[in-house]
Amino acid sequence: MSKKQYSLEELAALAMGEIAGDAQLMISGFAPLETAGAGDISFLVKAGQIDKLDDFKGSAVIVPMAVEEATVPLIRVQDPYLASARIHTALLEKPFVAKGVHEQAWVGKDTSIPDEISVAPLVSIGERVKLGERVSIESGVVIGDDVRIGDDTTLKANVSVAEGCIIGNRVTIHSGTVIGSDGYGYATDSQGFHTKRPQVGIVQIDDDVEIGANACVDRAAYGVTLIKSGAKIDNLVQIAHNVVVGENSLIVSQVGISGSTTLGRNVVLGGQVGVTGHISLGDGVMVGAQSGVHNDQKPGAKVGGSPVLPMKTYVRAAIQYGKLPEMGRDLRKLKKEVAALKAENEK
Amino acid sequence: MSKKQYSLEELAALAMGEIAGDAQLMISGFAPLETAGAGDISFLVKAGQIDKLDDFKGSAVIVPMAVEEATVPLIRVQDPYLASARIHTALLEKPFVAKGVHEQAWVGKDTSIPDEISVAPLVSIGERVKLGERVSIESGVVIGDDVRIGDDTTLKANVSVAEGCIIGNRVTIHSGTVIGSDGYGYATDSQGFHTKRPQVGIVQIDDDVEIGANACVDRAAYGVTLIKSGAKIDNLVQIAHNVVVGENSLIVSQVGISGSTTLGRNVVLGGQVGVTGHISLGDGVMVGAQSGVHNDQKPGAKVGGSPVLPMKTYVRAAIQYGKLPEMGRDLRKLKKEVAALKAENEK
Amino acid sequence: MSKKQYSLEELAALAMGEIAGDAQLMISGFAPLETAGAGDISFLVKAGQIDKLDDFKGSAVIVPMAVEEATVPLIRVQDPYLASARIHTALLEKPFVAKGVHEQAWVGKDTSIPDEISVAPLVSIGERVKLGERVSIESGVVIGDDVRIGDDTTLKANVSVAEGCIIGNRVTIHSGTVIGSDGYGYATDSQGFHTKRPQVGIVQIDDDVEIGANACVDRAAYGVTLIKSGAKIDNLVQIAHNVVVGENSLIVSQVGISGSTTLGRNVVLGGQVGVTGHISLGDGVMVGAQSGVHNDQKPGAKVGGSPVLPMKTYVRAAIQYGKLPEMGRDLRKLKKEVAALKAENEK
Repeated sequence: MSKKQYSLEELAALAMGEIAGDAQLMISGFAPLETAGAGDISFLVKAGQIDKLDDFKGSAVIVPMAVEEATVPLIRVQDPYLASARIHTALLEKPFVAKGVHEQAWVGKDTSIPDEISVAPLVSIGERVKLGERVSIESGVVIGDDVRIGDDTTLKANVSVAEGCIIGNRVTIHSGTVIGSDGYGYATDSQGFHTKRPQVGIVQIDDDVEIGANACVDRAAYGVTLIKSGAKIDNLVQIAHNVVVGENSLIVSQVGISGSTTLGRNVVLGGQVGVTGHISLGDGVMVGAQSGVHNDQKPGAKVGGSPVLPMKTYVRAAIQYGKLPEMGRDLRKLKKEVAALKAENEK
Repeated sequence: MSKKQYSLEELAALAMGEIAGDAQLMISGFAPLETAGAGDISFLVKAGQIDKLDDFKGSAVIVPMAVEEATVPLIRVQDPYLASARIHTALLEKPFVAKGVHEQAWVGKDTSIPDEISVAPLVSIGERVKLGERVSIESGVVIGDDVRIGDDTTLKANVSVAEGCIIGNRVTIHSGTVIGSDGYGYATDSQGFHTKRPQVGIVQIDDDVEIGANACVDRAAYGVTLIKSGAKIDNLVQIAHNVVVGENSLIVSQVGISGSTTLGRNVVLGGQVGVTGHISLGDGVMVGAQSGVHNDQKPGAKVGGSPVLPMKTYVRAAIQYGKLPEMGRDLRKLKKEVAALKAENEK
Repeated sequence: MSKKQYSLEELAALAMGEIAGDAQLMISGFAPLETAGAGDISFLVKAGQIDKLDDFKGSAVIVPMAVEEATVPLIRVQDPYLASARIHTALLEKPFVAKGVHEQAWVGKDTSIPDEISVAPLVSIGERVKLGERVSIESGVVIGDDVRIGDDTTLKANVSVAEGCIIGNRVTIHSGTVIGSDGYGYATDSQGFHTKRPQVGIVQIDDDVEIGANACVDRAAYGVTLIKSGAKIDNLVQIAHNVVVGENSLIVSQVGISGSTTLGRNVVLGGQVGVTGHISLGDGVMVGAQSGVHNDQKPGAKVGGSPVLPMKTYVRAAIQYGKLPEMGRDLRKLKKEVAALKAENEK
């Protein structure tokens, strides 16, 4: 695995940073401060932690603007966390190796396979599927009929994409995730038997989305379950039928979003949050972990608890919750005291 | 995909409804009011929404009995939601296409394959398995030894069914779901090491059950983990060993049911509910989303919260929870006032 | 499936118990009291339940020390639950049957396959993989490049193990589980776009670990996500990047543990618990089901609630929670009464 090399100057340009030190220094790797060695660049999040550079054995460090110079070459940036993500990504970049379609994969008829593609052994691809350039499909993946997948998209081992779903460019879907399972919808008769409501829509996943492992995105009853561009969805998340997830939203592990709910842009849902169906969360809404959202939320709202309260109220209520036994005792005592006072006054 | 056609009369019979309009009108599709076109039937849930028919471009509408006539042919029914599910299902129905066993599937010895079956490429079926008629098995499915599967059952991509499990007729299991994983049971010694308790039972899934994607149903320690007929289980649900799920129960996404718990008929568990082990929930129990059930529940009980309370109490308590900070302040103030009153009286 | 046979004497030795009855009696099976037949041994957890032996049809029973004799041969032990797990396991033990690598499996170059191994059809194994002796790999499993797996380990159907991960000896991973998916880490720019932070670490799973079905263990950002020896993890659990799970910890279904959190030895997390990132739970910490842990916990702490409280406080608070509506009413009434008393005194 021969790594790419960049000059400090090239990396600084990538991170929109300034150099302090030798601009032509060549960097070949990225590592945390503690483990960096020769050729590695590392990063420091806070200027106040400058002491951490004392034992540094790497070749250069990405630092906040507040750090003016140090004993090693620097790239000074507004946001070292972001800059290091970009630089690390560049250093890891490898040219796409097109392995073609493995002879132990199965491809249905009328499916178009571009030249630049990697389909591993034991992959099953249905009929009339369209695959983009530089798509990488790992073993165990099953792609249903009429699926369309954009360029530079990766499906990890054992992913299932059901018929008719559409996946954009530069999407990554991690192992075991299911795209396009039926939505959960039944009509119940007077005897309590359930008739399934047909789920005839699809899932559409836009560009630059990443979805974690063993997650589920159900197809729409009619129309589209939509994951908009740049959204990042963690492991074991449930996205029900006809949900819309807005651009760049972050949905942490084990969240469940019920049917027909719409999330705006840059919504953040903490781990294990539940969101009820047919509601709308505005742009930038933030929901604390384990919360339950039952109502529409205005753009920018920060909420927590189940059911959710404004975050500040929730934090105070949660603290007070621990004092409930004491409050109960106080209340019982007060009732007696007030009764006694009343009795005394009535004498 | 040539759709089936039905006359309005045939569809009305199916839905136990009455016709207002041309009984011989041919219907070939089903669509929501907004998107219906020529040949489509649609549905209106509430008579009060009759205005929605103004721009209707389809051919007929399923309506509540309260709607007597309209500008389009009608099927009048008691429950338009249920009737539309039945009619839509009928319109989608396709004859089973028996593709046989694909040459890139693997089938163990002494496994009986009926004529009318579809086994996709890259399916693995163990030894001594019995498959019913018109069973459809998608790619990536793994079926262990001695499994029995009834007629008209569908296993979607990447489902795993472990050895010895029994699946009934007209069952659908969605992608990634695992049937018959070991139950979670250990005995711990004085040093804190765990010895696994063997899990030698099976899972039995009765007729007309549907199980969502990436769910888990563990095999019994001894005997049977049982999903009774007509139960509908959503994605990412955990059913532990020796659980019994009653007929027609609805278990919404991300619910977890611990070992040896029994659910009656038509129990409804909202999303992310947790149910402890070795308890019993009577027929028709309803549990609100994110609740935690720790005790037996009587038939028909409606409960919410963690731990659960009667639903009405829970709703009031949840509202009061948001007022906890205020209650704390009030209580502190009252304590001071009462102390002052007492001091005054003692003067 | 010819079962192994043991004398009562041999089984007593295995369980460190004492015999009451014929030491040479041969036992061939294990069953619950209710269903045991000739040749079976069963177990009784509490001496007080001795009446349960009245209708017993098996050949011997494992009992607590307090039971001195009965109408059937006994093995008397300190802990019948633990003893029965050991004895049942011994009775089920079968010699490993090495089936070799099935011709419909795929194995990458430079991968070493020992003689004693079973690789089922439709398994995909990458390049430079090292597999131990008596490893059993079921259909649908996908193993990435450079993975190392110890002796006597079993991967059930459709498990995914991503590149570079290390799995120890006597490990069992149940179906659908994903080892080594990318951690969830992004850096966000001022426009709200997310840049992925490369996840270049691995997952290391030590000896005697068992992981349930459809669980996820993410690879470290750098370094190792570590599951230490003897830990037992249930279905649908989420273990984020750089988490450390201590020896013999028990993690029940649907738990989520956020990034860089460390669990000590013998920690117990109840079902659906959420643990925030970058915290530390000491040895023996016990967390009640559905709780949310946001702070470090001292060794031995028993906590519950979301956010967690000491267990005793939580239990009392949870009871009081149900009385919140009543408390609200009492408080309103008291405010009025105190106001009236004050008014009276001021007269």
